Amino acid sequence: MFDLKAYLKAKQQTVNAALDQLWDRTEPYPTRLVAAMRYSLEAGGKRLRPILCMAASEAVGGSEADVISAACALELIHTYSLIHDDLPAMDDDDLRRGKPTSHKAFDEATAILAGDALLTVAFEVIATAGREQRRDALKWLEVAYLIARAAGYSGMVQGQMMDLTVEGKEITSEELERLHHFKTGALIEASLKAGALLGGGNSQEVAALGRYGRHIGLAFQMADDILNVEGKPEMLGKPVGSDQAHQKVTGPSLIGLEQAKVRAGELVDRALEELKIFGIRGEPLAAIARYIVERDK
Amino acid sequence: MFDLKAYLKAKQQTVNAALDQLWDRTEPYPTRLVAAMRYSLEAGGKRLRPILCMAASEAVGGSEADVISAACALELIHTYSLIHDDLPAMDDDDLRRGKPTSHKAFDEATAILAGDALLTVAFEVIATAGREQRRDALKWLEVAYLIARAAGYSGMVQGQMMDLTVEGKEITSEELERLHHFKTGALIEASLKAGALLGGGNSQEVAALGRYGRHIGLAFQMADDILNVEGKPEMLGKPVGSDQAHQKVTGPSLIGLEQAKVRAGELVDRALEELKIFGIRGEPLAAIARYIVERDK
Repeated sequence: MFDLKAYLKAKQQTVNAALDQLWDRTEPYPTRLVAAMRYSLEAGGKRLRPILCMAASEAVGGSEADVISAACALELIHTYSLIHDDLPAMDDDDLRRGKPTSHKAFDEATAILAGDALLTVAFEVIATAGREQRRDALKWLEVAYLIARAAGYSGMVQGQMMDLTVEGKEITSEELERLHHFKTGALIEASLKAGALLGGGNSQEVAALGRYGRHIGLAFQMADDILNVEGKPEMLGKPVGSDQAHQKVTGPSLIGLEQAKVRAGELVDRALEELKIFGIRGEPLAAIARYIVERDK
Repeated sequence: MFDLKAYLKAKQQTVNAALDQLWDRTEPYPTRLVAAMRYSLEAGGKRLRPILCMAASEAVGGSEADVISAACALELIHTYSLIHDDLPAMDDDDLRRGKPTSHKAFDEATAILAGDALLTVAFEVIATAGREQRRDALKWLEVAYLIARAAGYSGMVQGQMMDLTVEGKEITSEELERLHHFKTGALIEASLKAGALLGGGNSQEVAALGRYGRHIGLAFQMADDILNVEGKPEMLGKPVGSDQAHQKVTGPSLIGLEQAKVRAGELVDRALEELKIFGIRGEPLAAIARYIVERDK
């Protein structure tokens, strides 16, 4: 029986240790800026994207070491996006994982700059890895490319923009899935593809893991929205029903809670389907896909 | 006699044409986000960083084509930094080059996201060039690295942070130069080094052009601050004396107007010194260095 909890914990430790090392080779900048960057980076994230990246590498027979820099870059980008999304001009959130958000703990200017700096250092980390692993230079450029595409105006930033402009408008469930793909799915898909590519996967394997990522990205968002309706507040660390209170358009609000659960299950099934070609090596990814819809927080 | 004006104009056209092409290969996203990105990008910037990048390539015997993608990336990063610097939480500026700033023309959320997307697409452009010019993959990784370093927490973002935290504090003219190096000099230095590297320069040439960039970056800032004291408002397109009104610490305010002019001249001389090894090929860069302290806007 595969122990997902132990697997996730071990991987989290690997990522956290690698992220720590980022600051070791830093010139003496014990600045407010670096403090703000670390504050958000070390606020206890699940490290989902780095873990998916490493698991994808393992699915194609690669190692953690092959992909650790890409894994770190993905978390740096995810963290920057949370800081900017929380800003007063955006979602205006005071708390994130029970701690004051960056602009509350520091100030708005520092939060904007910390986000900018985290995004920039993500590409520094990728470029550094590519320079060091010279034989794989082209692969690292490919990874820089697909992460930039997934994070920018054709991915995550576009998704956040859509999220802001969609407020109060009527949209279909297809349009909502498109929004969710841009906002969270694209970077998750890129996490898988980057891991598969750097781990030595062939183009068929990279594509299959990309599709797996696309499906679980959507399933993850749907499950989040379902939890927001019927989760236990003491498990979530935030009030239940906040989406409804904010009149946020979600899967459950558009197609109903039962249909939303059916859709989440469907997406997970399709994700699992993509893992068949990997046999036993795909087990961690299968366990993660199942966990996404079964979790209670 | 070298015609600087014609040279700058021709180079600006090259950069603008290349930046235009960015949007041609874009999927159909005629979105508010892309509109905001283009609004600031096409607001009539001098294209100083791209021009320096191309001139550096030519100084080492390279071409415009070798470096055009890096030149575009530098302008994308410069533009993002202007959008974020203008935000209410930062310098809170309503006008930039006589036009409403991004958060005035659109809104604050859009301005933040447009900046984020411009920064991200800069690295997409670099990665794309590296994938296409496979033989030079390592050089493009080197360029991604040095631009990320110059733009992030060890460069430009750090400089903006220092600028915000230094307000109202006493600093020395050395500390002020350090701040200016971070805020504008580092990316200018990177523009030169990227151009020299991609143009095929050897390490001695790359280093010399980097030092040239360091000196003119500081000279440029000093000249700006001098113009703010004694420039003609009709030439500058903004009121004279605004630095003093905002009690901004500048070179002239710390060491006096005359000493500031001496220092600017000194920096330009040191920049010119670095160009000697390039002979006639360094002429455009020499003319740019002289122009920086002689301009009236």
